[in-house]
Amino acid sequence: MTGAEQLIREITTSSLADEVRDALARRWQPGDGRIHEISRYALLAPGKLLRPLLLAATAETCGAPREQVLPAALAVEYLHVASLVHDDIIDGDDLRRGRASVHARFGMSDAIVTGDALLFQVFASLAECADRGASDRAVLAAIGVLAKAGVDLCEGQAQEARLAAAADGTVAEYLRVAELKTGALFRGACRAGALLAGAEPATADGITRYAEHAGLAFQLRDDVLPYVGDAAVVGKPDTSDAANLRLTMPVLLAREVAGPQDRAALDRALTADLTARERFAVLTEVLDRTGALEKTQQRAEAEAALAEAELESLSPSEGRDLLSALARLSTSRDR
Amino acid sequence: MTGAEQLIREITTSSLADEVRDALARRWQPGDGRIHEISRYALLAPGKLLRPLLLAATAETCGAPREQVLPAALAVEYLHVASLVHDDIIDGDDLRRGRASVHARFGMSDAIVTGDALLFQVFASLAECADRGASDRAVLAAIGVLAKAGVDLCEGQAQEARLAAAADGTVAEYLRVAELKTGALFRGACRAGALLAGAEPATADGITRYAEHAGLAFQLRDDVLPYVGDAAVVGKPDTSDAANLRLTMPVLLAREVAGPQDRAALDRALTADLTARERFAVLTEVLDRTGALEKTQQRAEAEAALAEAELESLSPSEGRDLLSALARLSTSRDR
Repeated sequence: MTGAEQLIREITTSSLADEVRDALARRWQPGDGRIHEISRYALLAPGKLLRPLLLAATAETCGAPREQVLPAALAVEYLHVASLVHDDIIDGDDLRRGRASVHARFGMSDAIVTGDALLFQVFASLAECADRGASDRAVLAAIGVLAKAGVDLCEGQAQEARLAAAADGTVAEYLRVAELKTGALFRGACRAGALLAGAEPATADGITRYAEHAGLAFQLRDDVLPYVGDAAVVGKPDTSDAANLRLTMPVLLAREVAGPQDRAALDRALTADLTARERFAVLTEVLDRTGALEKTQQRAEAEAALAEAELESLSPSEGRDLLSALARLSTSRDR
Repeated sequence: MTGAEQLIREITTSSLADEVRDALARRWQPGDGRIHEISRYALLAPGKLLRPLLLAATAETCGAPREQVLPAALAVEYLHVASLVHDDIIDGDDLRRGRASVHARFGMSDAIVTGDALLFQVFASLAECADRGASDRAVLAAIGVLAKAGVDLCEGQAQEARLAAAADGTVAEYLRVAELKTGALFRGACRAGALLAGAEPATADGITRYAEHAGLAFQLRDDVLPYVGDAAVVGKPDTSDAANLRLTMPVLLAREVAGPQDRAALDRALTADLTARERFAVLTEVLDRTGALEKTQQRAEAEAALAEAELESLSPSEGRDLLSALARLSTSRDR
């Protein structure tokens, strides 16, 4: 068993993961209504529930009773899955988690509408926490935080599309997009969890920094993955980033150190009219030769270490252990 | 000046409409970020702001201070506009409010993402009401109501698509879709307004019934409009419902009374491979000959009267006058 497999087992067999998974299955039993059925299809795919666990583990670390925050943990999954459903339409990805993506299976129209319905479910579910004993004030704060995270996520998606199109993107621009796109939901989930638990501002801020570092580590590993995994493991075409000409950290780092020949090869790969597979072959070679993949991985590990450091001031708990495992998984996962 | 023009003037020059319009313009000043700019384009189109006025007028009728509920009124407009942006993608409508629709102007990807961002703004804006003195409990109730309305709206859109495809739709199915699709937001806006104002349950229920009748009247008039207006007045292609083979009340009523010849013409229009314009010509003739347009209009007026009757128990106020004008406009508008 690899380190990543061990971590995934530790995370997915935790009692908190059990409760989140059970709550999700209970909430999304077969029902009537087409959107309900498509939502079930999208939500009950075998994901690792990392983002809802970020919220639930943070809330637990900060002292909230589990049953008060479970609907908020589900809300984070709804938000994440809604964005995946719409992303897959935009990117033309027909595979997700090893199955047909929602639009590939149910058509674009219903995929758009199902994503929208899931976004409404986010806030219906958050509001439920107040019925379970969380204070009205704390629930409203969590709603504000996740609504803001959602807006940031959308801005990040739009900026990413423009960055992809621009051949001259910089590391600073990349980091800004990562902060909005992946970072927003990590940060939102953790901060909402802390606020729901009524954490002190200093504690909530520390957890928020944890989330920012972990989110960046996760995104950097995501950039490396297509070149170390394979389509079967990752659950989506391994050439998707390349096919969409997405500007990733390895490409940016490779450009910094590349000699004239590698630089020309990179530019050709990102602009010329190559097939996805040809582009991927060129990128793999240059990214490997310039050491850009290795550097990206190192940077991811440094971010994960910074994330873990933020947990030191928290009292030991199952929640804290889970947050630590999630940070370590963010850089070692192979899917 | 027609009756509709008079009503529109009464509504759009009301002090409440002024405040909603000003709040919207203040909130959406030019800024940075592509999604912000596209949102401005979508939100600052010259609409009549009927749905936010439903919320604001209801809240005022029930005694809430205006400044407390203005962000909630804006939230209703965000929800409505988000659904229009996504609807236009689904229906392939390139015109909206007399200008290019968002996807026609900015591309499908950014249109999907902008709609999503507006849905997040709905709840960010609702949460703001608590900072302005509305009680946390009331704000959470309003959030729950509008989240539920959003889910209903999505289910209504999906059901409408299937009803359109089915040649054998019934009036009962039509009413169910109208209740979900148009009705949900009318109902949600009014109910949220009443709850924000801390209205008694009986008052909130009466206002909710007002909204249900007014919403149905609005939808029925919407069905009649393509046959009495023209593309320039309506601001979208007058053949859109026909082009999308949408099953409308006039078609359903026509089928009930049609002789064999008209029935065959209807079936051909809704299934055969006609151009949108040919289909529209056949429908216009049959709907007129069978009296279906007139019957639909009568039914709309009956619903508007039921809506107005629900207002009688409320104390006189500018808000109540506005709700009355909105009910009358729902059946007389020509755009």
